[in-house]
Amino acid sequence: MQFSKISSEIFQKIQNLLGATNVIVDKEKMYDYSHDEFAALSHTYFPEVVVKPKNTGEVSELVKLANREHVPITPRGGGTGLCGGCVPIFGGMVLSLERMNRVVEVDRQNLMAVAEAGVPLEQFYHAIEAEGLFFPPHPGDESATIGGVIATNAGGARAVKYGVIRNFVRGIEVVLPTGEITRIGGKLIKNSSGYSLLHLMIGSEGTLGIITEATLNLYPPPEMLATLVVPFATLHDAIETVPAILQNKIIPMAVEFVDQESLQITEEHLHKKWPCPNGKAHLMVILDASQEDELMQLAEKVSAICEEHNALDVVIAMDKQKQRNILEIRSKIYEAMRNAMVEILDLTIPRASIAAFVNAVDDLSQRYGMWCPTYGHAADGNVHTHIMKARFVQGAWQITPGWEEKYPKLRKEIHELGHEFHGMVSGEHGIGLVKKEYMPGFLDAAQLQVMRNIKATLDPNWVLNPGKIFDPKEKV
Amino acid sequence: MQFSKISSEIFQKIQNLLGATNVIVDKEKMYDYSHDEFAALSHTYFPEVVVKPKNTGEVSELVKLANREHVPITPRGGGTGLCGGCVPIFGGMVLSLERMNRVVEVDRQNLMAVAEAGVPLEQFYHAIEAEGLFFPPHPGDESATIGGVIATNAGGARAVKYGVIRNFVRGIEVVLPTGEITRIGGKLIKNSSGYSLLHLMIGSEGTLGIITEATLNLYPPPEMLATLVVPFATLHDAIETVPAILQNKIIPMAVEFVDQESLQITEEHLHKKWPCPNGKAHLMVILDASQEDELMQLAEKVSAICEEHNALDVVIAMDKQKQRNILEIRSKIYEAMRNAMVEILDLTIPRASIAAFVNAVDDLSQRYGMWCPTYGHAADGNVHTHIMKARFVQGAWQITPGWEEKYPKLRKEIHELGHEFHGMVSGEHGIGLVKKEYMPGFLDAAQLQVMRNIKATLDPNWVLNPGKIFDPKEKV
Repeated sequence: MQFSKISSEIFQKIQNLLGATNVIVDKEKMYDYSHDEFAALSHTYFPEVVVKPKNTGEVSELVKLANREHVPITPRGGGTGLCGGCVPIFGGMVLSLERMNRVVEVDRQNLMAVAEAGVPLEQFYHAIEAEGLFFPPHPGDESATIGGVIATNAGGARAVKYGVIRNFVRGIEVVLPTGEITRIGGKLIKNSSGYSLLHLMIGSEGTLGIITEATLNLYPPPEMLATLVVPFATLHDAIETVPAILQNKIIPMAVEFVDQESLQITEEHLHKKWPCPNGKAHLMVILDASQEDELMQLAEKVSAICEEHNALDVVIAMDKQKQRNILEIRSKIYEAMRNAMVEILDLTIPRASIAAFVNAVDDLSQRYGMWCPTYGHAADGNVHTHIMKARFVQGAWQITPGWEEKYPKLRKEIHELGHEFHGMVSGEHGIGLVKKEYMPGFLDAAQLQVMRNIKATLDPNWVLNPGKIFDPKEKV
Repeated sequence: MQFSKISSEIFQKIQNLLGATNVIVDKEKMYDYSHDEFAALSHTYFPEVVVKPKNTGEVSELVKLANREHVPITPRGGGTGLCGGCVPIFGGMVLSLERMNRVVEVDRQNLMAVAEAGVPLEQFYHAIEAEGLFFPPHPGDESATIGGVIATNAGGARAVKYGVIRNFVRGIEVVLPTGEITRIGGKLIKNSSGYSLLHLMIGSEGTLGIITEATLNLYPPPEMLATLVVPFATLHDAIETVPAILQNKIIPMAVEFVDQESLQITEEHLHKKWPCPNGKAHLMVILDASQEDELMQLAEKVSAICEEHNALDVVIAMDKQKQRNILEIRSKIYEAMRNAMVEILDLTIPRASIAAFVNAVDDLSQRYGMWCPTYGHAADGNVHTHIMKARFVQGAWQITPGWEEKYPKLRKEIHELGHEFHGMVSGEHGIGLVKKEYMPGFLDAAQLQVMRNIKATLDPNWVLNPGKIFDPKEKV
């Protein structure tokens, strides 16, 4: 694959189109656009230029230019990805959607919202809640953007009950690799009108089109929530409790597991206290209901199931402030651990196998002498193993000797394990740059070939986010 | 596009592969495979041969043969489609999946079921219910098959609360147009591993691959149901009530509207009584809850909303037998009306516009002097207008004079109306043969071109279900 560099002529065209203030070439200023939140910061690549279009027409013009001149163009949302999906590995343009940040409409009649792709989740939730409505999916980092979470088909903790982002997207506006603008779907609950380009675009990581606007389905908010924190003597006990909850016909809004060691590190980091000090592993269960009676009954039922499964204690928080405190600690574990982390894995496996899988990962972790805490979603099979290069001992991080050599081998073995457990390489982060090497291990050759053919058909010059999901050199 | 006829040599190969009993050439026996449930029976096309493979290996061999010899091959499930999707318009083979009718597994641990594509819904529901589990989607006709409802992304009445089939499919086994067998997804709640070929195949109507097996997500069953029947003086009053229910934070399992005239015809047809005789239009609301208290409160809330919106009465059925009776009458309207029906349309529009749209269709219907009752899903925007060629007057059907000339014009105007209301041509039936003419009116040229390119890439010889969704002559 031969890409062109951005000539002074191309650069001039870009500046004429966007105005000088919306085009960045200063290397220092481009640093923020050179990486994502992937923990191993070795994957930093600078673009030749960062462009910030204000509307879909400008995105279209930029894509047309890139396509005509064979210049790579990498769309970027909030940059919160965890697998290098928005990193411009072939240079060219990074197209940041940050200026397309308008919530266009909250339509109460149709229970739909329309937002530009660059709207951060935090802003989106505020706009929805101001209208007394609810957007169920909640991928962790609220600085992620609407376009970004659609491009990766993000999930998050609430997917147990409500499903992933995919289930809530009803329409998108997309700039195709040719620069053509197309509007797919609309404010429609049902749609069976030809191939679902909507669902093909969702999760395609900006390699088939640049999403510029989305129409999302909203719901009435749950009336009230309760958060349970349940400590167990072992992670195995904690995990084994989860299928029992589901089999008792209770679908919580979220079920997360957290290990004691990661919790303590986060408590120190935040100077906050988790509600129970005992136990090696904890479940955090969020329940929602429309009435207090119903909520209490649900909470009691879950408590009873946990106690049958050797819970050491059950803490029930009904108070909003207490629940917020628990959630904050849970959501900051990644931040607290990040500097000592090599990578957060994103394997997804059948949920009945979670306990066995985590045990097997533990065995590997011990064999390699590298700490691999597992925390995160407990009820949807998306197991986030965290490969650490250090361990927190007596108040300080101690580097694990030889982690650089061990890491790639351990990582490979964990992925092989995921395949043995009938899993897939990514549950919600996507493939991006850093997981594409595992695609052939999880997907058969016929399927990969179909994906590559689709890419080649939509983007014959391979200009859109090249080198993600698969390499352009595998071009058909 | 040039297709080949089935030579005696090809025929011999097919017989050798399947055995003579699984290959039909007798014209009388092929009649059942020459049409679907589309009301206008003008769309009857005979294949050259009907083949009945027993397993995926045989499907693969048949597709390889068809692809090599350029013989059209049209997959067929239960034949319950409403737009000619399984009709072999270019002859060749009809591949019936009727012998692949095994529920492979109901996995209680993972809340998943695995079924071969030819399993009828009725059999599937029985297998699931026998394990105390619940499969939320319910497209109307239970003789539809698992493969068929996935291929059309079927919806049904319960989509209001639970979404369409698409939301429940976790994995499929597919035979690609090359004959290659591939397994996509698995028993996974989350999956973001490359382009979603799963969702591309869902709703592709057998034109991109033949689905041979599916893995479907199950849920715990709702503990109890109540069915409300609410008569109104006008259809407009009935429809206007629906958004008020949703905006009061109640998401019923189903909300259907039925008009009095269609009900009376169905009562006569079945010799059964609908629970309330008054009113010109009725809402049927199904509520589910985990406790009796909660269910009663929901029912009272819905009653109060209906009364505020000019309901003439509210009948609440809690008893199972009574609820079954109501449901049966509702589900047999199509059957009772069918002989007098030209076509059931499947437009999907933003749900806040349902009342205005139905009023506009009424105006058209009066202008043309053709009866067009609207009944069906009231809360998801999927409006089934029924174009009738006769009207039931004093106990007998009276043909509408000149319906043959009026029908195509009226049909066209209703679709144009759907487009003006920001709708789409199909909500749940698919495009098949009879709706493809409307695709360019609803989808822009760029989108249609991408669809055709994808078809050409996956199926370069256009052998899989040719002439559906779009014409092969538009081949790129």
